[in-house]
Amino acid sequence: MSEKQDSLERLKHAPSIEGVPDILFQRWSPRALATTPVSAENLKKIFEAASWAASSYNEQPWRFLVGHKGDETYKKIYESLAEPNQQWNVNTPVLILSAGKKTFTQNGSPNPYQLHDTGAATTYLSLAATALGMHSHSMGGFDRDKARSLFSIPDDFELGAVTALGYLGDPETLPEHFKKMELAPRQRKPLDQFVFTGWDKPATF
Amino acid sequence: MSEKQDSLERLKHAPSIEGVPDILFQRWSPRALATTPVSAENLKKIFEAASWAASSYNEQPWRFLVGHKGDETYKKIYESLAEPNQQWNVNTPVLILSAGKKTFTQNGSPNPYQLHDTGAATTYLSLAATALGMHSHSMGGFDRDKARSLFSIPDDFELGAVTALGYLGDPETLPEHFKKMELAPRQRKPLDQFVFTGWDKPATF
Repeated sequence: MSEKQDSLERLKHAPSIEGVPDILFQRWSPRALATTPVSAENLKKIFEAASWAASSYNEQPWRFLVGHKGDETYKKIYESLAEPNQQWNVNTPVLILSAGKKTFTQNGSPNPYQLHDTGAATTYLSLAATALGMHSHSMGGFDRDKARSLFSIPDDFELGAVTALGYLGDPETLPEHFKKMELAPRQRKPLDQFVFTGWDKPATF
Repeated sequence: MSEKQDSLERLKHAPSIEGVPDILFQRWSPRALATTPVSAENLKKIFEAASWAASSYNEQPWRFLVGHKGDETYKKIYESLAEPNQQWNVNTPVLILSAGKKTFTQNGSPNPYQLHDTGAATTYLSLAATALGMHSHSMGGFDRDKARSLFSIPDDFELGAVTALGYLGDPETLPEHFKKMELAPRQRKPLDQFVFTGWDKPATF
């Protein structure tokens, strides 16, 4: 990793919290990814990690379609991306499309947690990727109807996100407005904007 | 932690993967929680950790309502639980109800990722809790209409999950059928059931 990338990683590292593993704070979503391919071994590891996420009734409603640059799966996922996302994904070595099964397999009843739990598995995947020296960036910006049609995804599955996976690249390769975001510090809401005791009553700590 | 609990933790520990932090494999969802309260300091830590999860356009659509045993918030969440969940939550010190904002704050357009991203934040929360020696167990089994009504949750938010948070308790305190689940090994689908290249074509590694 170059000195510039090293300094970027430091900038993007969220503040550590005593007793909480740093991996949670090291994960961020870059746009500049290198062309370096991802090994089958590492891919296997991150999907095996993903499998251990929590899910409602242990349904594991998630399904992942994984494409490597150059193959058919990749082409279909890339084609589905919104144009601005296509721009920064020109080098991305791996694109992953997630989907969540809308019904419980055991009894066919609706599973309102299919995307909640797919988000959990994707979080596991992204943390494992970070630990293995990679980065991931999940995107909502893609044409779901197109992706559904290109992959003949049945109605029983909800489309999830597209996740770019790879190694950190050079921010200088990004279009100007993306470069600016890439080099900016990360920001989050303070606790009193999302932790409450009543609907409009922030919790106190 | 007693010897029995220690042996249970070992049983529930998913197989380690070289290069991937063990915290992902140490998290599991117990039903027997101890009455031991959770400190404000630890609660603050897990919510601060949660804030660093990824979200579509960094919307951070999640909102958490947190109740401590004995307070009004807790009572309302507990009342909303399905009866079987009420059974094993008799000792749970903290109950958390999540919700996700259905629209992007910036422009009011629909955010189809509100629960996906709330699942991501809940995963961060649960991993931070695990690292701090606690456990969490998220549940879909509760009456969403009741919870919405008890907390006057506006239409613009989707109800997420109820998460029980606390320290590991004694499985012997559980009703028999829950005890059996509590002492069983964890199971997950193999990769060829959820990682694909075409919709019905499992990926090979």
